[in-house]
Amino acid sequence: MKQLHVELGDRGYPIYIGSQLLKRADLYAGHIKSKQVLIVTNETVAPLYLDQVLQNLQPYQVETVILPDGEQFKTLEHLSRIFDKLLAAKFSRNATLIALGGGVIGDMGGFAAACYQRGIAFLQIPTTLLAQVDSSVGGKTGVNHPLGKNMIGAFYQPQCVLADTDVLDTLDDRQLAAGLAEVIKYGLIRDAGFFVWLESHIDALRARDKQALAYAIEQSCRNKAEIVAEDETESGVRATLNLGHTFGHAIETGAGYGVYLHGEAVAIGMCQAADLSLRKGWLSRQDVERIIALLRRAGLPVNPPAALDAERFLELMAVDKKNLDGKIRLILLEKIGKATLPIYVDRSLLELTLNTYGRD
Amino acid sequence: MKQLHVELGDRGYPIYIGSQLLKRADLYAGHIKSKQVLIVTNETVAPLYLDQVLQNLQPYQVETVILPDGEQFKTLEHLSRIFDKLLAAKFSRNATLIALGGGVIGDMGGFAAACYQRGIAFLQIPTTLLAQVDSSVGGKTGVNHPLGKNMIGAFYQPQCVLADTDVLDTLDDRQLAAGLAEVIKYGLIRDAGFFVWLESHIDALRARDKQALAYAIEQSCRNKAEIVAEDETESGVRATLNLGHTFGHAIETGAGYGVYLHGEAVAIGMCQAADLSLRKGWLSRQDVERIIALLRRAGLPVNPPAALDAERFLELMAVDKKNLDGKIRLILLEKIGKATLPIYVDRSLLELTLNTYGRD
Repeated sequence: MKQLHVELGDRGYPIYIGSQLLKRADLYAGHIKSKQVLIVTNETVAPLYLDQVLQNLQPYQVETVILPDGEQFKTLEHLSRIFDKLLAAKFSRNATLIALGGGVIGDMGGFAAACYQRGIAFLQIPTTLLAQVDSSVGGKTGVNHPLGKNMIGAFYQPQCVLADTDVLDTLDDRQLAAGLAEVIKYGLIRDAGFFVWLESHIDALRARDKQALAYAIEQSCRNKAEIVAEDETESGVRATLNLGHTFGHAIETGAGYGVYLHGEAVAIGMCQAADLSLRKGWLSRQDVERIIALLRRAGLPVNPPAALDAERFLELMAVDKKNLDGKIRLILLEKIGKATLPIYVDRSLLELTLNTYGRD
Repeated sequence: MKQLHVELGDRGYPIYIGSQLLKRADLYAGHIKSKQVLIVTNETVAPLYLDQVLQNLQPYQVETVILPDGEQFKTLEHLSRIFDKLLAAKFSRNATLIALGGGVIGDMGGFAAACYQRGIAFLQIPTTLLAQVDSSVGGKTGVNHPLGKNMIGAFYQPQCVLADTDVLDTLDDRQLAAGLAEVIKYGLIRDAGFFVWLESHIDALRARDKQALAYAIEQSCRNKAEIVAEDETESGVRATLNLGHTFGHAIETGAGYGVYLHGEAVAIGMCQAADLSLRKGWLSRQDVERIIALLRRAGLPVNPPAALDAERFLELMAVDKKNLDGKIRLILLEKIGKATLPIYVDRSLLELTLNTYGRD
């Protein structure tokens, strides 16, 4: 088992990474300070892993909320079901919430924990690669609003994260690839050495080699943890984590939620950001091709949907959360391993990328 | 104008107290860092004070949400209306929210500010005495759940509080008295000198003498600010602010929401706590009579509703947020000016108070 620590003073916490973690009763016991435990999970994950988790929680008074699976249920309305259960069971402010699932469950469980009686303890057990390397680190929690993703939420840190590589065995190939998009992002924005490692281990990762996965998760979490420790509430360097995301959100919305997975849309967005970085004179054509090649080998799409033209892209990018004032700021790459802070991009240059990259 | 500072490090903020503050454009300008401003108020306060506030905000892009007036609307559902407006107006994370109203508006506006894009700035303009001396200090925000009051919320501090004594002119006598209950509470729990001052100025306060009101608000806020600075998240001394509240919540729920004002129920609860403190041998009979006399002179009820018997009281007290494990902890008085931390009280002693105090 590997262990990382997210350095956030008295809100700091450990991330455990490895095989067989779900069965480690000692890890649960070390981070649960009360009798009352609520597990929040979903209809897909519950039949696979809920029993394994429950077996470690026999000393506790355990309640469970099983939500429907999907981003479309990440709403205030479904969040209420968690509060309903906590209150019906008369859980006190000493209770502990365990979020067992992917990013949606982690975001909702964490936000429920942040709000219930103004804050109770919570543990994250991410069950997708994406959640293990991204949403489980950094304390961003929340739900969607019909007018925008993640618009309602809190910064709230867990007691610990259990990233068990065994749960990735039940993840389908497409979900695994979507997680790899965020893994590759860490190489691109701040860790050229990791990018090179990924170029030589991408096949092992797709074959679910446990050792390779544990290393990739560790490096991803370490990179993210360092960024978050430096800038918890995203006033500076944390914004670099959004590489490809403004393009990506436009693709997700434009194609209709559910057509692209988040990681897939981000993969395409990172290619567009790379293309734009080439036009700025920062990346070489060869750099861009390396990036596209690695994403392709990870099983990810790299070209924007044909139906989404430049005009519609611009419209959707302007309503991204980071651009609510109508101006578009983007994260670009100065080189592989170094991202810019958010910058305003010349509109004609952006249109060039939108009109030509991946449009052949 | 008086000015206090709530000492919470980088979350600290000033409280301005005095006459004519609503018209001080400089106070708004000094605490609003962005172009976008949302005012959250209600149907009662808007016709009285919204225009006055708006006149100071001409340089800004201002939107307004007017909620229905009443505790029954302090729900997640009505909170959503604030998010709807923020998003429809495309407000960014740099926007500022102004909560203009009593405790319900302050709690909802503050919670909306805490959650919108994981936190935007907010200003509190409390328009009731209760809100000026209580809910506007300390950062407790939130909404009710059908199964319990203030069960969903956050600790979130404003940029500043404007406590304008002029707005108390439009407060009816009953609401003013309800605010005085919490003012008297500060004297009881930690400031015997203030309690004595209140005994000699209670008539001036009821007559809305501006100078007396400003002094009472200042001393109340100072006492609360000191407590909150010591214990922001209520792990210790902050609990003393709940003097009379466990009894009070039982009265509010037992009589049906809306029959008693919060301050009225707390006044009765403080008398019950005083009676129990007498039975513990801490307060003298004369102390208890001084407390009852001051609350009566403030225009407050001091006897529990006849229909609420001891058994029902116990039932309701056991489901108070602080007692979700079914055990009843109470704040009592060691003397006038010194409260205990929450203590378990012998059930037979508690029943004695419930059966006999105010039951003649």
